[in-house]
Amino acid sequence: MPAFQTARGMRDLLPEEAERLNYIICKARETAQYYGYREVITPVVEPYELLSAKSGEEIRSRMFTFKDLGDRTVALRPEFTASIARLATKALKNEPKPLRIFSVGSVYRYDEPQRGRYREFWQSNFELMGSNRPEADAETILLTNSLIKATGLRNYSFKIGHIGVIREILSQENVDEKAQNAILQLMDKKEYGKAFRLIKQEKCRKTLQGLLELNGNTAFETVEKIKKHVAGYEKAVAAAENLLGILQLVTESGCPIETVEPVFARGLEYYTGLVFEVYVPELDTALGGGGRYDRLIEVFGGEPTPAVGVAHGLDRIALAMQTQTTALSPRRDKRAVVIPVKQELKAEALKISQMLREAGVSVEFEVMGRKMAKALEDADRRKVDFAVIVGEKELKEGAVVVRDMMKHEQTTIEIGRLTEKIRGKDE
Amino acid sequence: MPAFQTARGMRDLLPEEAERLNYIICKARETAQYYGYREVITPVVEPYELLSAKSGEEIRSRMFTFKDLGDRTVALRPEFTASIARLATKALKNEPKPLRIFSVGSVYRYDEPQRGRYREFWQSNFELMGSNRPEADAETILLTNSLIKATGLRNYSFKIGHIGVIREILSQENVDEKAQNAILQLMDKKEYGKAFRLIKQEKCRKTLQGLLELNGNTAFETVEKIKKHVAGYEKAVAAAENLLGILQLVTESGCPIETVEPVFARGLEYYTGLVFEVYVPELDTALGGGGRYDRLIEVFGGEPTPAVGVAHGLDRIALAMQTQTTALSPRRDKRAVVIPVKQELKAEALKISQMLREAGVSVEFEVMGRKMAKALEDADRRKVDFAVIVGEKELKEGAVVVRDMMKHEQTTIEIGRLTEKIRGKDE
Repeated sequence: MPAFQTARGMRDLLPEEAERLNYIICKARETAQYYGYREVITPVVEPYELLSAKSGEEIRSRMFTFKDLGDRTVALRPEFTASIARLATKALKNEPKPLRIFSVGSVYRYDEPQRGRYREFWQSNFELMGSNRPEADAETILLTNSLIKATGLRNYSFKIGHIGVIREILSQENVDEKAQNAILQLMDKKEYGKAFRLIKQEKCRKTLQGLLELNGNTAFETVEKIKKHVAGYEKAVAAAENLLGILQLVTESGCPIETVEPVFARGLEYYTGLVFEVYVPELDTALGGGGRYDRLIEVFGGEPTPAVGVAHGLDRIALAMQTQTTALSPRRDKRAVVIPVKQELKAEALKISQMLREAGVSVEFEVMGRKMAKALEDADRRKVDFAVIVGEKELKEGAVVVRDMMKHEQTTIEIGRLTEKIRGKDE
Repeated sequence: MPAFQTARGMRDLLPEEAERLNYIICKARETAQYYGYREVITPVVEPYELLSAKSGEEIRSRMFTFKDLGDRTVALRPEFTASIARLATKALKNEPKPLRIFSVGSVYRYDEPQRGRYREFWQSNFELMGSNRPEADAETILLTNSLIKATGLRNYSFKIGHIGVIREILSQENVDEKAQNAILQLMDKKEYGKAFRLIKQEKCRKTLQGLLELNGNTAFETVEKIKKHVAGYEKAVAAAENLLGILQLVTESGCPIETVEPVFARGLEYYTGLVFEVYVPELDTALGGGGRYDRLIEVFGGEPTPAVGVAHGLDRIALAMQTQTTALSPRRDKRAVVIPVKQELKAEALKISQMLREAGVSVEFEVMGRKMAKALEDADRRKVDFAVIVGEKELKEGAVVVRDMMKHEQTTIEIGRLTEKIRGKDE
């Protein structure tokens, strides 16, 4: 018989890893709640046209695409935004704006597997639709800050930029959107030489080349320099001012920004304004990133709706936590094993297990029919807190024996006081 | 531009539906904890061979199967058990037995969509590996009882049976496993006539036909009748005794069983012993079901390992809760909107929002730049508990105005006492 493997690029999360991922999902969900985002659950399998409508060639070519049994072309979602855009244009069309929507789940991209990169990975996704104001942009950075902080990660930092600065320069020089996307995609891959070669207009190219070299001592200084550098490109100046406004709001709200990158393009074609990413020093890849995409909802057939969003790479956050050896929640609930002294007492012992479970204790019932010594040895290995030993003599007096596995102490206790005894150790 | 739809058989869960599903997932995870099951997360995309190894023709033909870009045949998991069996034979091979494993997530089957049945649906899955004893079987029923009870559903009932009774009769008459599977599959579809026609041996056929008509006044009586009816088929009698032992344990542990079905086959080929399902009167389809499959781990290349497991259909549980209009958790956390009186106060207002969020209050910040009256009107529509109004005059005195949206009362309050004011209403 074959030794079955996972499919290439896929992986099993064992209990410890699954616990870490669930912990992060829980923090993301809490963040959504604190910021007033309502959760929706969208399908993993989506029509190909929906997912490919605006995601950029790069992602399009790396989707898991196939035909279903009804011969329709579908694909596994490579991200959440297209699905949320569908909701915004249909089911949630008449909801009052702003509309704040949260999602969390697995997404799929056919990438070469490497450390921290899998073909199935997990994202939390926040979309704020209906506001074109800097406080909306600021909110996506602030909630990202809250989430990363809640995971216990240290030394993380934000990198921000503004696609509008670049797009507006190119637009003023009559570079069409398709060419803009090609240029931005090269910039995203840091292939600046290739990108600049696509720009025929010399003034425009020089301005962008100059932007690339700009650098200030602080984030504020960098933005001021950008503003000066693009003078003459009126709308690019406005974009820089917009970036400054966002920067001020997040800084004053307790989230310092370290880096402003004057030429900052992110992988997805749909960004139109702010773009940002968050990093830890231990990893090369971003833990999360997002930005503004004011024309996306239109593409999906909705009313023109300004929008800003962010996605967090939960596997990378997990990897960063591992690398920084960040501990999870401070304490665990108590665990017990329940062992009947002989087979005839199984039903009684099970009843006691049910009582403990209903009181919130985690109980592993002895289902192997082992002798007491063996069962206790196993309980020791499993590092449970208590063993509850159900014996005939004690049972006649309405009692059981409780063994504290850490202290190696054993006492007889009334069944009515058992829950208190076990849970009392919580305090 | 096209109005994008979900793919056929897929659906979006809007906030209220997503909340219900998450609530059930949360109850399943709590149940796992109370019963000592550790959670693992396995991929949605699995090798076709793994998923098809033992799942039965019925499910095999309804899988979402496709080739990945590396030309390997993969499929979307139609259930969890095969993935967990892989873990048991590889990554968790050396873990001490019993091994208790929990999973929850979406699974995929290409069925005709209908009420309560989708092509993407949600399951929680519990597997207990390493014990062949009735207390292990009993545990899967008891934890299902705990889960369904925790969701608040009423009038649910269990149906149990034992594949061993049927398989052992057929085995003793030298019907091979393949033919047994064909017969059981027909029985599962209640096509008894067709099933019996496949049995050439008259005595055997008559015994099984007789089984079908057995009925007792209580579950115990039915099992006793089965035992008598199959006398002469020694191992079938042992199977009936095993069922009786399980029935006794669960009944004494506070989970009454209403129905014993003498001829009870479930859709998956791998069952060998106990099978059970749980129902509510409002729905035709089971909310969950499981059973014993003592030979499955071997099929996946592991050591022979007795095992028993159960899967719960979370969408059906959600549908049952809707049908019974079961309320979710009794209370919600407090929600507030924070509105700056003028644009210049945005940063201050954001700071106050952050303070409230860090104290666990859900805050929707005013990102639309609306006038106060409009913003308050919107807050009213969103049914938040409080509006926090940040004005210049109050701010100078370290205070803000808080409006209780339910009572229509407005007071000025020190910022230091704001959290207490808002959270205090919890009590």
